[in-house]
Amino acid sequence: MSKALSIFDTTLRDGTQGEGISLSADDKLKIATKLDQLGVHYIEGGIPGSNNKDIEFFKRVKSLGLNAKIAAFGSTRRKDSIADQDANLNRIIESGAQAATLVGKSWDFHVHTALQTSLEENLAMIYDSIAYLKQKGLEVIFDAEHFFDGYKNNPEYALSVMKKAEEAGADWLVMCDTNGGTLPHEVHSIVSVLAGHAANSSLGIHTHNDCELAVANSLSAVQAGARQIQGTMNGYGERCGNANLCSIIPNLQLKMGYEVLTPAKLAQLTNTARYVSEIANVHMPNNQPYVGTSAFAHKGGIHVSAILRDSRTYEHVEPETVGNKQRVLVSELAGQSNILSKAQDMGIDFDPNNEDTKEVINRIKNLEHQGYQFEAADASLELLLRQANGELTELFVFESFKMLVEKTAGRPVVSEAFVKINIGGSSVYTAAEGNGPVNALDNALRKALVTYFPRLNEMHLSDYKVRVLDEMDATASKVRVLIESRDLSTSWNTVGVSGNVIEASWEALVDSIRYALLGETQLENQEVSSQRGGLVNH
Amino acid sequence: MSKALSIFDTTLRDGTQGEGISLSADDKLKIATKLDQLGVHYIEGGIPGSNNKDIEFFKRVKSLGLNAKIAAFGSTRRKDSIADQDANLNRIIESGAQAATLVGKSWDFHVHTALQTSLEENLAMIYDSIAYLKQKGLEVIFDAEHFFDGYKNNPEYALSVMKKAEEAGADWLVMCDTNGGTLPHEVHSIVSVLAGHAANSSLGIHTHNDCELAVANSLSAVQAGARQIQGTMNGYGERCGNANLCSIIPNLQLKMGYEVLTPAKLAQLTNTARYVSEIANVHMPNNQPYVGTSAFAHKGGIHVSAILRDSRTYEHVEPETVGNKQRVLVSELAGQSNILSKAQDMGIDFDPNNEDTKEVINRIKNLEHQGYQFEAADASLELLLRQANGELTELFVFESFKMLVEKTAGRPVVSEAFVKINIGGSSVYTAAEGNGPVNALDNALRKALVTYFPRLNEMHLSDYKVRVLDEMDATASKVRVLIESRDLSTSWNTVGVSGNVIEASWEALVDSIRYALLGETQLENQEVSSQRGGLVNH
Repeated sequence: MSKALSIFDTTLRDGTQGEGISLSADDKLKIATKLDQLGVHYIEGGIPGSNNKDIEFFKRVKSLGLNAKIAAFGSTRRKDSIADQDANLNRIIESGAQAATLVGKSWDFHVHTALQTSLEENLAMIYDSIAYLKQKGLEVIFDAEHFFDGYKNNPEYALSVMKKAEEAGADWLVMCDTNGGTLPHEVHSIVSVLAGHAANSSLGIHTHNDCELAVANSLSAVQAGARQIQGTMNGYGERCGNANLCSIIPNLQLKMGYEVLTPAKLAQLTNTARYVSEIANVHMPNNQPYVGTSAFAHKGGIHVSAILRDSRTYEHVEPETVGNKQRVLVSELAGQSNILSKAQDMGIDFDPNNEDTKEVINRIKNLEHQGYQFEAADASLELLLRQANGELTELFVFESFKMLVEKTAGRPVVSEAFVKINIGGSSVYTAAEGNGPVNALDNALRKALVTYFPRLNEMHLSDYKVRVLDEMDATASKVRVLIESRDLSTSWNTVGVSGNVIEASWEALVDSIRYALLGETQLENQEVSSQRGGLVNH
Repeated sequence: MSKALSIFDTTLRDGTQGEGISLSADDKLKIATKLDQLGVHYIEGGIPGSNNKDIEFFKRVKSLGLNAKIAAFGSTRRKDSIADQDANLNRIIESGAQAATLVGKSWDFHVHTALQTSLEENLAMIYDSIAYLKQKGLEVIFDAEHFFDGYKNNPEYALSVMKKAEEAGADWLVMCDTNGGTLPHEVHSIVSVLAGHAANSSLGIHTHNDCELAVANSLSAVQAGARQIQGTMNGYGERCGNANLCSIIPNLQLKMGYEVLTPAKLAQLTNTARYVSEIANVHMPNNQPYVGTSAFAHKGGIHVSAILRDSRTYEHVEPETVGNKQRVLVSELAGQSNILSKAQDMGIDFDPNNEDTKEVINRIKNLEHQGYQFEAADASLELLLRQANGELTELFVFESFKMLVEKTAGRPVVSEAFVKINIGGSSVYTAAEGNGPVNALDNALRKALVTYFPRLNEMHLSDYKVRVLDEMDATASKVRVLIESRDLSTSWNTVGVSGNVIEASWEALVDSIRYALLGETQLENQEVSSQRGGLVNH
C-alpha cells in the first residue's frame, strides 16, 4: 500500500465552530495562503450555503492561484426533495470549488432523531446528492457523520451508507468520529472492516478530541488503511476541538514513515501554526506538542546538563525538523543561528564572532523574554538589526505624547492625541482627533511627519492586534500590540510591548513609520526650518 | 486479570517541571487535600533531597490524615558509592512518606552519556537503592526512565534493569516514556513483553505528551497489562506536559470498564481540575477534554436543535458524570432555540410566542451583527435577558468618564481616569491612576462603588481580550473587548464593542460590575447621602 497521504485542512470550516473563533473573509484568505505554502492537499473554506462571508471567500480564493484543492462543505439534499433543486448543493457548485465535502448520516439513531426520516430516504439523499455533484464535475469527499457510533449501533446500516456513497461515485469515504468518543483500538478495527469493503473509493478519517484521543485515532485509522486525514491547525474546533494536524503531520512523517510534506515544508509547521493562532487571535498553549514555545524547553537541573551533552537524551525529535527550537529556560542558549539567518535574509551582514553581534543577539533575547514576538514582527526585528549594524539614521526623535478619551452619557466618545517630536533639530507639536485612541495617535504622528516625508501618504495601517500576555493579572498585566502596515506594493509588521495598551500601540506605530522611512534621507536643518511654518501647531 | 487500577498523581512533582508552574508548600498541601477527596491512590509530593519547600510539605502532610499514599521521589544512589550513606535516599526515608518513587536508568545510551558509568554499575545502583528502601519498610515504585527508548535500542539491557529491580523487591515496575516520543502501538507491544516477564511486581506506566499521545499511550499500556497510571492534573509537566489524568480517568472508567474512582468521586473531576488550575495559576484551555468550559458546548445551529431533542446526538458521555455541564453557545450561526435554551439555563422564563421575546431575540441578533459575541460573554447576555424580562434594577447610572494617558521620553507612562456616576440619585465623581488605561478606569469605577457595595472587594478581573473586528480599516475600525471576572467561587464573562478600545473596555467593565451586583438591593437615598462624604473626590 502506498505511503502517500492527503492532508485535508478544515480550519476554515470546522475550526470556526470552536468557541471564541471567528474569522472574516480576509482572515480566511490569509490562512488559506499560509496553509498552501505549508503544502496541505485540501483546504476546506466554508459552507457556501450558510453565509455571505463564505461566498466571498470562494469568490476571492480563485485569484490566489493556490496549489491546494479548495473544498466547499454542505449537507446531503433535504429529505423528500430533488437534488438539482437543492439550494445548498447548487451553492456548492456555484462556489467554483474543485471539491465538495458532503456530509451525510450513517448512524441510524441520528436518521430517526435528528433528520426524522427513514433509513431508505437517507440512503437516497446520499446517493442523489453525490451523483449530482459528480455529474457537475466535482471531486466528492463523503463525510460519514458519526460513522463509528453508527457502526457500533448498526454495522450493516453504516456499511450500506458507505456502499451507497461509493456507488454514487464518491472519490473519498471519510469516517467521522463526530462526537469524539471512540477509542484508538475501536477505530483500528472498524476502519479495517471498511478497508475490506471499499473497492473504488479511498478512505479518510475525521476525528474530534473529546477523549484527548483525536491524534491517536487518526494514526490508528491510517495504520488500518485511511489515506486522507481531516483536521485543523492547532486542533481548533467545536467542544474539545478537531484532530490537530500540527501533531498528526510530524507523527506520520517523522515517526511512521509516511509521505506527507517535503522536509522543507515540514520545517514551516511551527511558523504556520503560530501565524494561524495570531490571525484567529487564540492564545497558543506554551506546551502544545511540536510547535509550542515550551515543546522543546528544558527547565534546569539534570535534564539541561544531559541535553547539553546530547540533545537526544531528552528530545524525541530535532526541533528544527518542525521549525521549532530548543530552549534552555535557565541559561539562555537558543536562537543565535535563527537570528543570524534572519539577518542574512534581510541582506544584513553580521560576523557571528563579533562582540556587537553578541550584544544585539542578547538584546533580542531579552526583548523576547519581556514578551516581544519578532516572528510576527519582521519589520521591528529588521530595525533592531540595522540599528545594531550602524545602518540606521533616525529621522525623528520622540519627545512626548498625551492621549485623551472623553465620554459623556448619550454623546459620542471623543479621542484626541497630542504628539511632540523632534525633526532635524526642531520640535514639532501636533494635535489630532481620531476614531479611537490609536487612530488619534496615528493621525497626530503622521500630521507631524507627512510634509517632510510625503511617502507616508502611500501607507496605511491594515491590521491591529492586541494580546494580553499575563492572563492572571488582567488589566494590570502586560500587553503586546502587533500592527500590520501596507503601501501600494508590500506589507510589514511591527510590535510593541508595555503594561499600557496605549504605550504598546505607540511603540508599534512608531516602528511602522520608521520602517516605512528606511532609505529616506536625513533632512537638513535648513530644509526643516523652511517647511516648519505651515505645519507646527502650538 | 483484575479491573482495579491505581492512579498515581505527580502534579506536585513532575507537574511543577512545567514552564511557569511553581507551587509553594501551602499550595501543595491544598492540592493534596483536593486530590485525596477526588480519590487518587498515590500523591507524589516532591523530592525531599532537593529543597526545603518539599521537606516542609512532607512534614506537614502527615497531619492532614489523607487516605492516599504519599510518595517521595528520588534517584538511585550515586555511582561508586554506598546506598545507606546516600544523602538523597536518606532524605526520602526521613520524609516519612509511605512510598518511594525511585528513578533509575534503563536506556544504555543514557547510562553512558548522562550517568557516565558502566551498565553493570547502573544495575548495582538500582538494586542497592531499592533493597535499602525496602529494608526501611517503604513501598517502592521503580520508575524506569526512558524505558521505551531503552527497549528499542537494547531490549536485553532494558529488561535486565527491570529484572534487577524486581529482585531487589520493587513493588511496582513503572515504564516511563520520558521523552514522550513513543507511539501507542509500540507501547502496547513493549508493555506486553514486560507483562510476560514480571512475576512478583505489578506494572505501571508514565507517559509524556510530546506527540499529543500521552493519554492514548496510557490506555494502550493498561490494555497490555499495566495497573498503575502515573500522570498529572490537566497534564501539567515539562515541555508538552505529562499524561493528563483528567482525560485518562474518565476514559478508563466510562469507556473501558475499569474500576478507578466511585461515580460520586468521578463527578468531582471538573471541580478538582479547575481548582488545581486556579492554585497553579495556569489558565485552563476552554477546550480541555471532559473538564473544560467548552467540552460540552454546542455552537452550530443544526447541532443545537438535535441536542435539544436528545443530547446523545452530539455528546459522547453525559457531562454530569465528570461534574461538567452542557452549554449552548449563542452565535450568528444559530437561532432562536439557542437563546431560549440559554434563558432556561439561567432560570429566566420566556414565552417563545410572546412579542417581547421576539424583540429581545432580534436585539441580540442585531448586537451580534454589530460585533458582540455572546457565546464568550454569558454574563452580558444574562443582563440583556433579565432586563428584557423586567427583572433588572440598575444600581448606578453612568454620567461620564475621561481617560488620560501621558508619556514623556525617558519617563514612565502615566494613566489616569475620572469617572462620574449616579448612585441612588447622588452624583459621585472619582479619579484614580492605574497600570494602563483600563486598569485606571476599573480602579476609578470601583472606588466610586465599593463603599456602597462591599461585595466588589471580593471580585477581580482575571482576563482581558481585545479583538479588532474589521481589519481593513485598522486603527479606525471596530474593537471587541472580552473581560473575564472572578470572585472566590465563580467566574463570568462580559463584552463591549466600539470603534474606540477604551469605550469598548468601559462597556465590558460596567457589565462585569452590574453582573456582580445582581441580587444586591437598591440603596435608599438616605443611605447614599450618609456614606457619601468620605468617598467622593472632586
